[in-house]
Amino acid sequence: MADAATDLVLAVDVGGGTTKGEITDASGAVLCAATVGTPHGETAFDAIERLGGDLLATLPPPERARVVRAAVILPGLVDSERGIAVFSSNLGWRNTKVGARFADGWSLPVLIDHDVTVAGWAEWRYGAGRGLDDVCVLILGTGISGTLSVGGRLVRAPRSTGAAQAGEYGHIPVRHRDGLPCPCGNTGCVETVASGPAITRAYTTRTGHEIAGAEDVFAALDTDPEARAVVDDAVAALAESLLGVLHASCPELIVLGGGLARAGAVLSEGLHARLTALLRVVPVPRVTLGEFGIRAGLIGAAHLARTGSLR
Amino acid sequence: MADAATDLVLAVDVGGGTTKGEITDASGAVLCAATVGTPHGETAFDAIERLGGDLLATLPPPERARVVRAAVILPGLVDSERGIAVFSSNLGWRNTKVGARFADGWSLPVLIDHDVTVAGWAEWRYGAGRGLDDVCVLILGTGISGTLSVGGRLVRAPRSTGAAQAGEYGHIPVRHRDGLPCPCGNTGCVETVASGPAITRAYTTRTGHEIAGAEDVFAALDTDPEARAVVDDAVAALAESLLGVLHASCPELIVLGGGLARAGAVLSEGLHARLTALLRVVPVPRVTLGEFGIRAGLIGAAHLARTGSLR
Repeated sequence: MADAATDLVLAVDVGGGTTKGEITDASGAVLCAATVGTPHGETAFDAIERLGGDLLATLPPPERARVVRAAVILPGLVDSERGIAVFSSNLGWRNTKVGARFADGWSLPVLIDHDVTVAGWAEWRYGAGRGLDDVCVLILGTGISGTLSVGGRLVRAPRSTGAAQAGEYGHIPVRHRDGLPCPCGNTGCVETVASGPAITRAYTTRTGHEIAGAEDVFAALDTDPEARAVVDDAVAALAESLLGVLHASCPELIVLGGGLARAGAVLSEGLHARLTALLRVVPVPRVTLGEFGIRAGLIGAAHLARTGSLR
Repeated sequence: MADAATDLVLAVDVGGGTTKGEITDASGAVLCAATVGTPHGETAFDAIERLGGDLLATLPPPERARVVRAAVILPGLVDSERGIAVFSSNLGWRNTKVGARFADGWSLPVLIDHDVTVAGWAEWRYGAGRGLDDVCVLILGTGISGTLSVGGRLVRAPRSTGAAQAGEYGHIPVRHRDGLPCPCGNTGCVETVASGPAITRAYTTRTGHEIAGAEDVFAALDTDPEARAVVDDAVAALAESLLGVLHASCPELIVLGGGLARAGAVLSEGLHARLTALLRVVPVPRVTLGEFGIRAGLIGAAHLARTGSLR
């Protein structure tokens, strides 16, 4: 019989580069974990199924019997109700019924959901936003997206919009006229200024120096005025991108999660200062860093598998 | 005993210029109505109480006994839970316990709420947005504000923010760098481009001609390229102001209500066309005109009095 205290769950986070899986207990302790490269195209689903099967196979039979549910989170567009990977341009798949397939392969109930939605939900419900009802979470990394929670509920795009994702903050244009082109087709989306690759590119454009990534820009903040200017510009763009949602719904807290949030206070305090300068009519929300970093998706997938829904 | 089918309610909409009151039955039929000028300062509350008392006094006693509840809607900041008019710069009041006062004066339970919130709720639940769960309502008039409904619930600012109002769309800056000053202290709020007074002012600035109001600009659209340019600019600003909330929550429908919506399809179709040009990643919502015009607040107040909450 199911017993929440001893149940185990399988969580799988499918990324553009690698797919991570782990089996955890109710305390979050990791019993086993594995990472594989994510193949391009539909063969990704073979690799994911194998990863989950291998993890389950590492458990002794009594432990294996305690695994009650799995959750797999995917990038792109996901139809969580029907367990379908609708579309991913990065990974090259379209309308694949992955939920039923993994459920068959693993002999487990399997939930499918959108990676950033689950990561943002995890930061809200279990991480930096826990206990609050009105929270905006930004997951900052190679792209920018996140979640919005209002009145204690996660905002999801209505069914009538198909498999659209809410929380697409990264494609809010902040430099309509003089910005860079975004792969989405627009100009000046905040992702073209404040994502990891955008910060890296902006630094190289200003200085002529090639660098490994945005972490190099953050590391040079105290000594390199060009690095400071690039980060200030990214923070200003983030602040502008949030003005619409702040006036519409007045969240109490903004959580900055994802890999880029490792940069720390320069982002959270910088964003708060910028919002304080910009907001006159609605309250300035607190700004804090996420607690789960790049593990937010996996941690969220485990919670999702355990609770059965993003509540 | 209360019976929803025969109950009457008193609805009062307190505006900056006039205060309107009516007593209606369950079908919305108006049994009696009155309008008075709204005095500046705390004496406004005397005038409101007298208006309601006079309306109740016009009813024969058996009808008077059927009035089960009143709702009074106010501009500015309103604490609906405690029935307090927190602040109105236009009307010059601060922290007045109006709910208890009217309840005493009228011998009725009285609900207090924010005028635009109630007007937007009415358009969503009973007007152009009825039957949908995810709707953004803009009330366009001397200012711009509105409501957001997500997953079938009205978004309200969290209690922790004090008496802040959600739906302050008008103060989303869309012309940070080259816009006009807004009384809020910022530059380029959408209200400085797309409100009624802003459209009037922009036309006069472009042409040197004084006009009576925005309706003159809309009336001249087909014959006057300057009028067309002013309205196109207002529609572009409206579209830009909505980009944040559209990416965050993907509403199905935008309702344009308030007095300015009388301009009709030039606004609704214009805004839809502009959003279609701007949105790449989230779905383009439908755009429609409100059904209640400037009566949305009064109609909403009557529904609020009848239902007891903004559900």
